[in-house]
Amino acid sequence: MAGNTFGKLFTLSTFGESHGIAIGGVIDGCPPGLEISEADLQVDLDRRKPGTSRYTTARREEDEVQILSGVFEGKTTGTSIGLLIKNTDQRSNDYSKIKDTFRPGHADYTYQQKYGLRDYRGGGRSSARETAIRVAAGGVAKKFLKTHLGIEVRGYLSQLGPIKIDKVDHSVTNTNAFFCPDESKLEALDEYMRDLKKQGDSIGAKVSVVATNMPVGLGEPIFDRLDADLAHAMMGINAVKGVEVGDGFATVEQKGSEHRDLMSADGFKSNRSGGVLGGISSGQDLVVHMALKPTSSISVPGESIDINGEAAEVVTKGRHDPCVGIRAVPIAEAMMALVLMDHYLRHRGQNADVQSITPVIPAQSK
Amino acid sequence: MAGNTFGKLFTLSTFGESHGIAIGGVIDGCPPGLEISEADLQVDLDRRKPGTSRYTTARREEDEVQILSGVFEGKTTGTSIGLLIKNTDQRSNDYSKIKDTFRPGHADYTYQQKYGLRDYRGGGRSSARETAIRVAAGGVAKKFLKTHLGIEVRGYLSQLGPIKIDKVDHSVTNTNAFFCPDESKLEALDEYMRDLKKQGDSIGAKVSVVATNMPVGLGEPIFDRLDADLAHAMMGINAVKGVEVGDGFATVEQKGSEHRDLMSADGFKSNRSGGVLGGISSGQDLVVHMALKPTSSISVPGESIDINGEAAEVVTKGRHDPCVGIRAVPIAEAMMALVLMDHYLRHRGQNADVQSITPVIPAQSK
Amino acid sequence: MAGNTFGKLFTLSTFGESHGIAIGGVIDGCPPGLEISEADLQVDLDRRKPGTSRYTTARREEDEVQILSGVFEGKTTGTSIGLLIKNTDQRSNDYSKIKDTFRPGHADYTYQQKYGLRDYRGGGRSSARETAIRVAAGGVAKKFLKTHLGIEVRGYLSQLGPIKIDKVDHSVTNTNAFFCPDESKLEALDEYMRDLKKQGDSIGAKVSVVATNMPVGLGEPIFDRLDADLAHAMMGINAVKGVEVGDGFATVEQKGSEHRDLMSADGFKSNRSGGVLGGISSGQDLVVHMALKPTSSISVPGESIDINGEAAEVVTKGRHDPCVGIRAVPIAEAMMALVLMDHYLRHRGQNADVQSITPVIPAQSK
Amino acid sequence: MAGNTFGKLFTLSTFGESHGIAIGGVIDGCPPGLEISEADLQVDLDRRKPGTSRYTTARREEDEVQILSGVFEGKTTGTSIGLLIKNTDQRSNDYSKIKDTFRPGHADYTYQQKYGLRDYRGGGRSSARETAIRVAAGGVAKKFLKTHLGIEVRGYLSQLGPIKIDKVDHSVTNTNAFFCPDESKLEALDEYMRDLKKQGDSIGAKVSVVATNMPVGLGEPIFDRLDADLAHAMMGINAVKGVEVGDGFATVEQKGSEHRDLMSADGFKSNRSGGVLGGISSGQDLVVHMALKPTSSISVPGESIDINGEAAEVVTKGRHDPCVGIRAVPIAEAMMALVLMDHYLRHRGQNADVQSITPVIPAQSK
Repeated sequence: MAGNTFGKLFTLSTFGESHGIAIGGVIDGCPPGLEISEADLQVDLDRRKPGTSRYTTARREEDEVQILSGVFEGKTTGTSIGLLIKNTDQRSNDYSKIKDTFRPGHADYTYQQKYGLRDYRGGGRSSARETAIRVAAGGVAKKFLKTHLGIEVRGYLSQLGPIKIDKVDHSVTNTNAFFCPDESKLEALDEYMRDLKKQGDSIGAKVSVVATNMPVGLGEPIFDRLDADLAHAMMGINAVKGVEVGDGFATVEQKGSEHRDLMSADGFKSNRSGGVLGGISSGQDLVVHMALKPTSSISVPGESIDINGEAAEVVTKGRHDPCVGIRAVPIAEAMMALVLMDHYLRHRGQNADVQSITPVIPAQSK
Repeated sequence: MAGNTFGKLFTLSTFGESHGIAIGGVIDGCPPGLEISEADLQVDLDRRKPGTSRYTTARREEDEVQILSGVFEGKTTGTSIGLLIKNTDQRSNDYSKIKDTFRPGHADYTYQQKYGLRDYRGGGRSSARETAIRVAAGGVAKKFLKTHLGIEVRGYLSQLGPIKIDKVDHSVTNTNAFFCPDESKLEALDEYMRDLKKQGDSIGAKVSVVATNMPVGLGEPIFDRLDADLAHAMMGINAVKGVEVGDGFATVEQKGSEHRDLMSADGFKSNRSGGVLGGISSGQDLVVHMALKPTSSISVPGESIDINGEAAEVVTKGRHDPCVGIRAVPIAEAMMALVLMDHYLRHRGQNADVQSITPVIPAQSK
Repeated sequence: MAGNTFGKLFTLSTFGESHGIAIGGVIDGCPPGLEISEADLQVDLDRRKPGTSRYTTARREEDEVQILSGVFEGKTTGTSIGLLIKNTDQRSNDYSKIKDTFRPGHADYTYQQKYGLRDYRGGGRSSARETAIRVAAGGVAKKFLKTHLGIEVRGYLSQLGPIKIDKVDHSVTNTNAFFCPDESKLEALDEYMRDLKKQGDSIGAKVSVVATNMPVGLGEPIFDRLDADLAHAMMGINAVKGVEVGDGFATVEQKGSEHRDLMSADGFKSNRSGGVLGGISSGQDLVVHMALKPTSSISVPGESIDINGEAAEVVTKGRHDPCVGIRAVPIAEAMMALVLMDHYLRHRGQNADVQSITPVIPAQSK
Repeated sequence: MAGNTFGKLFTLSTFGESHGIAIGGVIDGCPPGLEISEADLQVDLDRRKPGTSRYTTARREEDEVQILSGVFEGKTTGTSIGLLIKNTDQRSNDYSKIKDTFRPGHADYTYQQKYGLRDYRGGGRSSARETAIRVAAGGVAKKFLKTHLGIEVRGYLSQLGPIKIDKVDHSVTNTNAFFCPDESKLEALDEYMRDLKKQGDSIGAKVSVVATNMPVGLGEPIFDRLDADLAHAMMGINAVKGVEVGDGFATVEQKGSEHRDLMSADGFKSNRSGGVLGGISSGQDLVVHMALKPTSSISVPGESIDINGEAAEVVTKGRHDPCVGIRAVPIAEAMMALVLMDHYLRHRGQNADVQSITPVIPAQSK
């Protein structure tokens, strides 16, 4: 059972390699009647798009998504939605050197061992290129969550290397190439990245996502808790090495009297839990943080081996992000939206909003 | 949970409407190393294709399938395979009349009631148009089954209206537009269909599929028996109303002493079971029959209702098969191939044929 | 992926062998608030129970089901429901002879080949003993369908060997050991079975199940159609070799003008479709028929082989039903109920009936 | 779709409440031929068992697991395995006070809102009581991993409140009630816990699990990566708020030149990745850390609300662990074993070790 389908009721099945003809996917389970257009999805695709700043890969992709089915006269019909994004900038020649060598820190070695062969062009299926489809599908989920339930899902950069970002002003996040929600940190980030680029090195990052205006009751204990499914979703993003819900690892040093969120008739008095109790949403803001490792595609030479196990040196010359964490912001938002959508349907059903199942005619069978 | 994914380990997720931009799908779980090309899949697509004879719909579709991913240098890589077929002949204007009327015997009424709206053009998602993707995906399965396991899956028309076809010569099946395996019945079929066309009516059919050179052991009791999954697959083909494995409904009048297939050191002495015992393949030929109802798209006027429950008369003037059962032959083959592929992987694993998981280097972690 | 779980949203996972300690299962996805007790489930268990008449196996099992979880103060809580039935009558010594011999027509050979070993006592997992849990779980589904949706699921014997039963009076079905809905056929059935017993032989049967008061809209195209899932469910019952929906195999000889169910403002004018259009329930009665083969456990000697492939003669001396089809009636009802329940949840969601998700307190997070 | 099933090919479906009759589960997909007994499973159950030290809850449960099926003559048969543990110490009266009040930091509020009613006795289904079945099932997985693949899964306490444990000696872990792998920290832990108990408070903890002797190739990109599934598994353990693979959150401040694990002909030169590249195991040790929040069941009074939204004070007087993290060690091991088992089957198939599918007899059907 290969793992190219995400979700259980609101599912996304994807395909596509970094340097193939196209990437695409199928959304299944979308409720009928949702107004959606390609323009709705393009917003986040443009946010994720490579080549939008000097801090991300110079690869240029139009990333124009096409909706091939499931939408009729501007509305979803309840049938599956086909999504397609053509690959336009496939410089395969850039990658010929890695055909027989495993780049350290990459999936080259593990794909080769697992499958016995691999599409080595640009990392093939293991490339972050495929996340464009997640972002497109996440756009459908986001639209539903916002218009039908009022839920808003917003991510931001919360740390880049040593630079911690504590102040969160969502109105700032999308005004800069770092998805940084604190204007006062922009200069420091810019300087840090310039230095890094000179070194030919890369850096890790921390990304946070918050859903506001959450309903109570999403999450299916005991295995498919909302937080467990979010952890699965986020750890499944390329380069993510850690996931926290609410106070996360800080809880290790917290006492019970300090951690538990007290309740009053006016609401919860704190939100250390991050909006989940017993795997079910509490109605508080849903708060998730994740750690993204520095990309291994750097121009600093690195010791490795070739396909025969012989020593080989690797220098990555291609177009790569010095901090892959930055572009993960819209991806993380998309994944949270997909999880919430899935859990909404698990809780309420695909057709919960169809007004009635009263038949037009009686079912008199003679 | 919408139902646009088929299979559990070898999965096909499809999308597309009769008159949309394209139909397509994602195959997941295909073992790596299988040699496959678009030409391999085109063979059966051409067999299924409308417009190939006067007995099938006059709609002309090129039905050219494109493999968008998952194949590299002519071989599958173990990653998901994207399939796309563009719709070229979409005469939407033909269908404007049925916008507000439910055609009797069609899914118009049930889609409208289930989803609250529907893509009425050509039946939308409920059209048999989507089966083209099943046939394409079935082509991948068929290729694997044949080259890796020696299994061959072959279907044929076994009855059309009153005309029963008992003699089965697989070499004859594909030489005629009826998929009839008995040359002596061709004239009768031709005549019957000519008469039918004059009446503007349609007729039911019985289709059979046989897999030869079967291994023992495919099928997962107790719910996902091989025969149960075949029944699910076949009953999921448009217009199918009945499914039999082996002797099927004839067993109602059989005695135990007559039905049970005796065994000897030379093999089974009969095959009334149709190749399945306790839900697991016995190594005998796998034999499935199915009944396909006559299409309801006929030019004989029929009483119906409109979207408001008011009486309305329906006459279908479009391009339709007088016997949809005929074209179901390659579809039924594809579905059996998908089921067998899925059960092979459930029994043996996606990577069972990857020679070894011995690592190229030791895993010395310091 | 073994196949011991049935359903997608309303799931039943079962375990247990014919001669093990107990059989049992887990129901997941049951909506909260359903009033249910062991007594509710016992009704159908008693109908299925062996030893209730001279026409079924003489094995005596109390078949007392215990609800271990998921019900609190008489109501389901929305968590998983554990079911347990202890095996009380395990005469393992009866079965020592079949340890090394494959009974023809049974799953002995296929289990041995698939798994490399098998629990040979009474057929182990392949025994119809496990269907008791299906019946218990079906009881939960039936209760919900009836009390929440008004749907009633009723089965009956429609043919036994050459004896066809056309008249259906549901009030008669449960008054006799044959589940025969036509009082006038009881004597013929009795006589036929007496003769059969003398011969030491067995006979096939046809069983029908009907759901009345159906809502429109259940069924998930395109693969998980209601009829496809019913076919899967029914073909997964031990001994079933054929499944029909509505007119089934009779449609092969029907014309379109004859088959299609016309519609008027007063309702459908016929029900040849059996209550399903395009894989979605139409609101008409849901009608399914199935063929059950004669049991291979007969006292007539049969040629077979032993575990080494050597010739061996088999005579079954144990306690077996001469017509396994009879006892399949409550099993078939249970399977239809499980399918309907699953599709209701797929359409409407597990918690559709929970009045509100308005939180008790606001979610004010400070 | 409720979430009481874990895994895709090696599945565990569980049931049972804290104060019900019993807890139990069904394992499906276990390969045939594994030698297993109740004693094998009891080892870890005893490690998890409450009442084994003064630092864990005083509740006394025998936690004796019974294998009800799927094992014959000491070996698994390939069919589903039923597990049952009776609840023996159910002092329901302890819990009557919380019937109408929501304990802060607990799932009382969210269960009540999600389902409209709840089994309030001891937390019902949300109690950690259910993890006993995970441990039992994990025992089956562990046995297979060890005997068939040589993989060993071992957990330990890596931090308790402010006390960090850096030295890992697996031979020490099971010699003390803290699962502490460093003897020199035992006194400090003991002292800390004594103080905590006096305060009536609780504390968080960090737990780590390592699998050694890993094969290369486990993990299904792109959504069901090994690390993503581990994150899902671990975040699904009660009280877990954060999960890391390898260097986890430390990677935020790492540079690419520092993070990437270089490779040589002798093996990897470091293991910052924690044994996963591109979602697939690299053959290096698999390393996972998790944060567990302090239990909210403390005797320090806390502000809350009752079922009507009115203010209420909560003091937990029951038998509770002051540090739930400690007992999570065997649970985390079990979850890792379940994930590895699932991924082994996804990679290799349930019957990969069955020597051959060559039939005993030819399949000559006449």
